[in-house]
Amino acid sequence: MDINFLYVSGGCALAALVFAFFMFTQIMKKDPGDQKMQDISKLVQEGATAFLAAEYKWLAVFVVAVAVIIGISPESNGLGVRTAIAFVSGAGASALAGYFGMYTSTRAAVRTTQAARTSLSDALKVAFGSGSVMGMTVVGLALLGLVGFTYAYTDGLKEINENALNAVLGFSFGASSIALFARVGGGIYTKAADVGGDLVGKIEAGIPEDDPRNPAVIADNVGDNVGDVAGMGADLFESYAGSIVAAMSLAYFAFKGDGQEVMTSMVLLPIAVSGLGILSSIVGSFFVSAKEESQLQSALFRGLVVASIVVAGAIWWLCSTLPMPAKIGSESIAMASSVKVFIAIVSGLVAGVIIGKLTDYYTSASYKPVKNIAFQSQTGAATNIIHGLATGFESVALPVIFVCVAIWVSFEFAGIYGVAMSAVGMLSTLGISLAVDAYGPVADNAGGLAEMAGLPKEVRHRTDSLDACGNTTAAIGKGFAIGSAALTALALFSAFCTRGGELIRAKGESAKGMLAPDGTILLDINSVSVTVGLLIGGFLPFLFSAMTMRAVGNAANKMVEEVRRQFREIKGLMEGTAKADAARCVAIATEGAIKQMAVPGLLAVAAPVVIGKFLGIQALGGMLAGALVSSVMLAIFMSNAGGAWDNAKKYIEAGAFGGKGGPVHKAAVVGDTVGDPFKDTSGPSLNILIKLMTVVGVIFLPWFI
Amino acid sequence: MDINFLYVSGGCALAALVFAFFMFTQIMKKDPGDQKMQDISKLVQEGATAFLAAEYKWLAVFVVAVAVIIGISPESNGLGVRTAIAFVSGAGASALAGYFGMYTSTRAAVRTTQAARTSLSDALKVAFGSGSVMGMTVVGLALLGLVGFTYAYTDGLKEINENALNAVLGFSFGASSIALFARVGGGIYTKAADVGGDLVGKIEAGIPEDDPRNPAVIADNVGDNVGDVAGMGADLFESYAGSIVAAMSLAYFAFKGDGQEVMTSMVLLPIAVSGLGILSSIVGSFFVSAKEESQLQSALFRGLVVASIVVAGAIWWLCSTLPMPAKIGSESIAMASSVKVFIAIVSGLVAGVIIGKLTDYYTSASYKPVKNIAFQSQTGAATNIIHGLATGFESVALPVIFVCVAIWVSFEFAGIYGVAMSAVGMLSTLGISLAVDAYGPVADNAGGLAEMAGLPKEVRHRTDSLDACGNTTAAIGKGFAIGSAALTALALFSAFCTRGGELIRAKGESAKGMLAPDGTILLDINSVSVTVGLLIGGFLPFLFSAMTMRAVGNAANKMVEEVRRQFREIKGLMEGTAKADAARCVAIATEGAIKQMAVPGLLAVAAPVVIGKFLGIQALGGMLAGALVSSVMLAIFMSNAGGAWDNAKKYIEAGAFGGKGGPVHKAAVVGDTVGDPFKDTSGPSLNILIKLMTVVGVIFLPWFI
Repeated sequence: MDINFLYVSGGCALAALVFAFFMFTQIMKKDPGDQKMQDISKLVQEGATAFLAAEYKWLAVFVVAVAVIIGISPESNGLGVRTAIAFVSGAGASALAGYFGMYTSTRAAVRTTQAARTSLSDALKVAFGSGSVMGMTVVGLALLGLVGFTYAYTDGLKEINENALNAVLGFSFGASSIALFARVGGGIYTKAADVGGDLVGKIEAGIPEDDPRNPAVIADNVGDNVGDVAGMGADLFESYAGSIVAAMSLAYFAFKGDGQEVMTSMVLLPIAVSGLGILSSIVGSFFVSAKEESQLQSALFRGLVVASIVVAGAIWWLCSTLPMPAKIGSESIAMASSVKVFIAIVSGLVAGVIIGKLTDYYTSASYKPVKNIAFQSQTGAATNIIHGLATGFESVALPVIFVCVAIWVSFEFAGIYGVAMSAVGMLSTLGISLAVDAYGPVADNAGGLAEMAGLPKEVRHRTDSLDACGNTTAAIGKGFAIGSAALTALALFSAFCTRGGELIRAKGESAKGMLAPDGTILLDINSVSVTVGLLIGGFLPFLFSAMTMRAVGNAANKMVEEVRRQFREIKGLMEGTAKADAARCVAIATEGAIKQMAVPGLLAVAAPVVIGKFLGIQALGGMLAGALVSSVMLAIFMSNAGGAWDNAKKYIEAGAFGGKGGPVHKAAVVGDTVGDPFKDTSGPSLNILIKLMTVVGVIFLPWFI
Repeated sequence: MDINFLYVSGGCALAALVFAFFMFTQIMKKDPGDQKMQDISKLVQEGATAFLAAEYKWLAVFVVAVAVIIGISPESNGLGVRTAIAFVSGAGASALAGYFGMYTSTRAAVRTTQAARTSLSDALKVAFGSGSVMGMTVVGLALLGLVGFTYAYTDGLKEINENALNAVLGFSFGASSIALFARVGGGIYTKAADVGGDLVGKIEAGIPEDDPRNPAVIADNVGDNVGDVAGMGADLFESYAGSIVAAMSLAYFAFKGDGQEVMTSMVLLPIAVSGLGILSSIVGSFFVSAKEESQLQSALFRGLVVASIVVAGAIWWLCSTLPMPAKIGSESIAMASSVKVFIAIVSGLVAGVIIGKLTDYYTSASYKPVKNIAFQSQTGAATNIIHGLATGFESVALPVIFVCVAIWVSFEFAGIYGVAMSAVGMLSTLGISLAVDAYGPVADNAGGLAEMAGLPKEVRHRTDSLDACGNTTAAIGKGFAIGSAALTALALFSAFCTRGGELIRAKGESAKGMLAPDGTILLDINSVSVTVGLLIGGFLPFLFSAMTMRAVGNAANKMVEEVRRQFREIKGLMEGTAKADAARCVAIATEGAIKQMAVPGLLAVAAPVVIGKFLGIQALGGMLAGALVSSVMLAIFMSNAGGAWDNAKKYIEAGAFGGKGGPVHKAAVVGDTVGDPFKDTSGPSLNILIKLMTVVGVIFLPWFI
């Protein structure tokens, strides 16, 4: 019976991939525009491919090295060859999703531009279609991989045990590794090109954004694709896979005492929820269409809301169909277990939407915080920065409170399994929410192409309105990314404590003092190891952010030098009679990003291993908790401060306080530039940092005990 | 026998006060300069007094209200009238120290200026003397209060018990309350005047800093006194008192099983160390003198080093004289208990110096980080900000690692009591280290007076060299402030867990599940209450920083408007023929600071009570730990980023990258302005926030169980 749910979920994953491929062929059928447009687009495509090739080459070495370490470890520890295979597959699937998403987006952009020559509605279709390809590829490949490995390693659900689930966890670890490097590398790339190009182009040479005379403009467009499409996709791929795997692992420990049938169905539930979430996302995406600018935002929301409602219904059905444990969550809540589990899952879904809306409040020009930053820019760049930072600091409180509410509610109703399931719930509609998010950079690129190809103003106006709407919806996407990262990391952390407890018990009597009453590792804050761990975990995200910010700065500096050199040495560039050497800029951004992503990435993988090995398991637990706290705060702070600065600048550009080019605008540009690495490099990388460190902790637990 | 140590410590405290009063009379005997200088100085004195009067009036209401709440609570809970009396006394002593220190510094500044007309050596004597008055008053009043209450509440050490020690804790709580408001209020005042004055004066009107035509310049000078002297003094007063009280409280719980004699001597040890620390500081201060500019820095260091060596010897003597427990710390370390305790105490002393040196590295223009920020300013304000933030982020790691080392070492050698004693050790030489710190603003003010009174250039040059040297030593002071805050908060946190455990045990069997194996409250990170608490505690410092930064912004805006109004409406102001209305600016800064300090201050007091009451003791424990982690990181980040920006600007002003007035300098001024609230308002306030919240948690524990 249960196995059918696994087959159906696998079918849903395949459906996602078929849908993605169908959308892809539809996009490719569209008119790619005139020769000039195609030429420019080709440069972006080649640049993006060149970057991914360089990145993947580097990553392949890393993945193989880690796979060997995992593979030669004894199988009894939950490591070994099976885990290694899952690890490589997770890495491969994430890389493949990133590649295909970016392959599509770089081709969709020019077609969006061409469509925007005649119709907003058609342009939306192409751009959103490209986002859907990314979204569906991510959820499809992730779920297919998980279904496949679950089937293979549990012998068709017949032998669900710790080792099998740990081997499946390898898939998530593989995805995490790729994600971190893709986010960091892509983030460095996109901001180095953006900041570097802007500093010389807009400020020194005084030419507009996306002007083809600026040699960095192609690299900037490539950056949108490698950072905002491939990087974001890899980020959410791993959140998605991580939340499902963590819930499966916790289900095994929590319900193995409730009989085989119940345990199996609880292990299956996260996969089944995700499968039905895919179908809901496909349904939702049919509701996204708009004829006029004013309908754009509501069109995208409609898709999300429809998907959320459909999936909520599906979850209700699942909960009432699958066998449930007799007791779950707090005993003082007198409800059927199926209702309790349903509420736990939906609490995540609701929290995700609320956090998204809060992100919107703090970063959209429609509300007070951003307007205030614009207002404060009247007294110069310093007050713009001070108030941007203050807004970022302030914006941390409410999202964290709602994460806490989701944790508390889901725990009360369904225990720690509930917390993990609320993360699964939050990400169940990822297929469409990622589409909504990944369509932004396509619209952005389409605008850039229109500018570079010298198309009529109304084309740029249409792509701009697509882009502006994308910024708002992207805010919601960021909210989901952060909220789900926090919940997923927490679920993984619980898996860490639970599995650690099992391993300690296996050691026998002598280690009993290290166990909490519930059998997990005892992590008493008031012990020195845990305290020291908390403090170490606390500073790691700061150090990591310092590294990624500096990386952007260093890569941007190289870009500045190159752009200055070209303006100086290429005669006629400024006058538009000579062509810029865009390929050189693309190469510089690629090289810089690859070189600079290595150290912070390795820090994330090495830190838990070093602390676990030398300071012990308690310090490691403290470190993971400290990093969780610190990362969540910093990530929200950075993302929101960056978003707020960006939109304060756009608000001024739209005419407030003297409009574009005035002194207030100049002050706002400073904030926007500071915000770039905040919101697109350092901030989002932290989401992955905590998940990756926790996964590393779980995977390598046997080494530390 | 033991009681003699208490008498001697009381004598040391009195010696500090006598020394302070003696230094004060020496300063007052100095020539206060010509009439013009005295007139200007009088304005600063009046402004400072007016601010403290307004601030203390507000605080009196708060203190009385809290005292009533404490006083009417049942005595058996460790609250009651005795605690209330200690609370009011702690608040009063801190306020008195702040008032006297500021009374002296505002009078010393003009005498420093006058002395600087003839000799650098004399000017140093006056300025450092003023710092000593502050330092000695703080340690003298704090220790005297603690000795007095310990004597009174334990009936001359005859009845040391939990209730008595908790009542003494009230003294620390009183000091904390004053400290937070004094730091926040003073910090808002000083930066509102500074930023507001600079924005209009330096940037809009184009007149130099400290120009008497700028109406905000008197308020700016007042700010140095209320923020950097009174605020800093109150901050360290409470760290000093808090670390001693926490160690006493932990000593009682840790050693009550070792017999009356040992327990009493361990309870006394922190007081005795502090008493001898005072004598060492007095000895050290005789070594501070310099004839030439090049000797300044080494003169101040010499004083600190001499005091540290003397106190280390004194601690060794104490440890070998007082009765010690047979066993302490890790049993695997085979050393006499006296040696172990000595090492624990000295680990704090050493860590303090190292952290100070690290702060110096990250914020002084002699080293790479600041030079790099100056270098990056060449590409504009945005890169100046990005690299300043990155430097701040990066600078968190090493100081936290050394705090961790101090924690680990002191714990291994002397258990949790050792951790508390390492904080006591770090602060034992506060008498002189605070003097070194508090002399800076006097030198700064002296320079301002020289400028305003139109004295010859060499006078300003002399005060400038005093000031520059003060900046470096102040960095070390900041390192002590942050390091000791972390250790003190941790010690208080342990007291929280220990006392909470006692209270839970008193409740009987039913509450046993809430206890860790060692009898303290069980705070397992892997429980939902603790996790939620950690997350809430994690965002509070961010929210608090947002509030204080905005407070500075709001108050500064009012100042900007007023200065603009005066330049517009007072005819002849720019030409120097009419006088600015300085009193109006002083009133605006006062009003702004008082109004804006209330909300963040109340948040700090209310948060632990609300969480403890509604989410329970476990969530409160998590919250305190989360706030500790988050506060330490943010405080170091903000202080160091602010200091680095400040010195990058000064480095450029000294001639690098085009020098003062060039475009690189303009970019650096932006960073400096952003850094002002970072390093002088928000950052240092966080040191107090964690200590205050933890003290509130300990004091009100009986309410939550």
